Amino acid sequence: MTERRTPSLDPVVAHGRRAVSDALADLPDDAGVVLGVSGGADSLALAALTSFVVASRGVRAHALVVNHGLQEGSDDVAQRAASQTRALGVETEVARVEVGADGGPEAAARTARRAALRTYAESVGAVAVLLAHTRDDQAETVLLGLARGSGARSLAGMAPRAGLWRRPLLGLTRADTERVCRVEGLTWWDDPHNADPRYARVRVRRSVLPLLERELGPGVAAALARTAAGLRDDADALDALARAAAREAVRDDGSLDAEVLAGLPRALRTRVLRTAALGAGVAANDLTAAHVAGIERLVTHWRGQGGPTLPGGLTVRRADGVLVFGAAADRS
Amino acid sequence: MTERRTPSLDPVVAHGRRAVSDALADLPDDAGVVLGVSGGADSLALAALTSFVVASRGVRAHALVVNHGLQEGSDDVAQRAASQTRALGVETEVARVEVGADGGPEAAARTARRAALRTYAESVGAVAVLLAHTRDDQAETVLLGLARGSGARSLAGMAPRAGLWRRPLLGLTRADTERVCRVEGLTWWDDPHNADPRYARVRVRRSVLPLLERELGPGVAAALARTAAGLRDDADALDALARAAAREAVRDDGSLDAEVLAGLPRALRTRVLRTAALGAGVAANDLTAAHVAGIERLVTHWRGQGGPTLPGGLTVRRADGVLVFGAAADRS
Repeated sequence: MTERRTPSLDPVVAHGRRAVSDALADLPDDAGVVLGVSGGADSLALAALTSFVVASRGVRAHALVVNHGLQEGSDDVAQRAASQTRALGVETEVARVEVGADGGPEAAARTARRAALRTYAESVGAVAVLLAHTRDDQAETVLLGLARGSGARSLAGMAPRAGLWRRPLLGLTRADTERVCRVEGLTWWDDPHNADPRYARVRVRRSVLPLLERELGPGVAAALARTAAGLRDDADALDALARAAAREAVRDDGSLDAEVLAGLPRALRTRVLRTAALGAGVAANDLTAAHVAGIERLVTHWRGQGGPTLPGGLTVRRADGVLVFGAAADRS
Repeated sequence: MTERRTPSLDPVVAHGRRAVSDALADLPDDAGVVLGVSGGADSLALAALTSFVVASRGVRAHALVVNHGLQEGSDDVAQRAASQTRALGVETEVARVEVGADGGPEAAARTARRAALRTYAESVGAVAVLLAHTRDDQAETVLLGLARGSGARSLAGMAPRAGLWRRPLLGLTRADTERVCRVEGLTWWDDPHNADPRYARVRVRRSVLPLLERELGPGVAAALARTAAGLRDDADALDALARAAAREAVRDDGSLDAEVLAGLPRALRTRVLRTAALGAGVAANDLTAAHVAGIERLVTHWRGQGGPTLPGGLTVRRADGVLVFGAAADRS
């Protein structure tokens, strides 16, 4: 009899194992990876899938259960998650992190979590950290970016791979991860924050996406994820081209050659100008498309006018064919 | 006493007049323009704003009231609209068009309308046709594109200017156009099709956009329109770059150089491959991102495999370093 796969293997589990296997394919067999684990269905599923994949190779998997300490009973949640990942054969630690306040509660928790994962990855000699974001998380991210109106990079959502971080489950749904947990006999924890309508992400998940699926047909989440992937390619290409264009346009003294800028397609010109404004000290969160359009008029609609005032008391003006950023006082 | 503007000029009317004036700024003073008029608030507002703008120049404005003949009373609606645009001093004709069935009722009506406007523009010697799409129409278009998951070009919505067509009102809301009508004493018609939930666009207007505004804050429609403008610049730049890349990659016999393709950023490679597949005869509506990704693997994951089967019985294969499209039978 020829060897064959267990006929009862769940197709979602098989799909998830393949996704994790692909995400680790480039790693040498003695590499170490870290799994970020919260105790939710997504990260427990990631742990189960990864433990299977690494068993057939020499790759070491380590889990870090991050306890943000933000809720009653979070210690118990963390210990229950850790005992389950250990039972999967994954070496596991629990880290209690201090969450600051910068950028709001979600951003602060992410910053603390990322720092803990990075430190742990260094301590165990891991070359990659696997995060359990799903296609649903991706769709939510795209819709939140859309509501901000902030361009391709923000609509491109989360990268499957960026530096240390890898997201093998972007092709699986949240329901898929719950199914993996049920098949593997894992008990996940539903974070009450995930049902708190004070978070925009929760409102997107609970009311916006279901309405979109109802009104525009099933498959909207998949369409959003597909959109994100396409726009990520676009943003990568345009950012690289804009960096090359900036090397032509920016002079040694930091000023920008208006003629070179005028010859660029608008998508590249606005990227070069945006990067230059950030380099001059404008805060990224304060710099709007309207500011960049104002700077652009010094290139495309030049008639001797003054430049726009930028956030942070900065300004930009055109003289002798170049654009110069400076403090507002420089203009006198 | 110095001359000054009427102090009571409505700010929305002033904004609309400026928008139309900007849209016509490049036209010579003896040019003719055609207005597409349905009798709705948007197109009657466009007629009022344009009649004011052209009065101060030599530009001739002609209106074509398009009667699709799809509804009870559509003759009356068309005549009422025509008498109002004539009262604004705009030379007006009414055209009854035959709506086919290709692509669904909305697409068929648009095809018939466009043909009538193009013919009328030729007959009166007009160089531009002004369409009355608003920012709300643009936001709806972006959301419909998003639900299809079909990339930057589809998310980029409607162009402010494309060939014969110009859309001066993309910066005004639908409510703005109703306000212009009230200020100008015009009586618009509410098309019952605009409330028919069998149309996806109506569902977006009536339920999706209001929910997005409620859950993610006001300004979502403006954010969608801003997104569309940014993605339009991106798509324009990438399409132009892809055309240049195709000139390098496509050989005289129509085959594609795999090495040149391999050196392109993915955003350009997929565009070149998509264009080549369309050129080989695949219907645009049938060609998915998955098909293009399948072709791409012949470049990026080449290990001697066969190429994917494409819609319409076409195929693509790689041999001697080039990609060749052909009928499926060619593969034998």
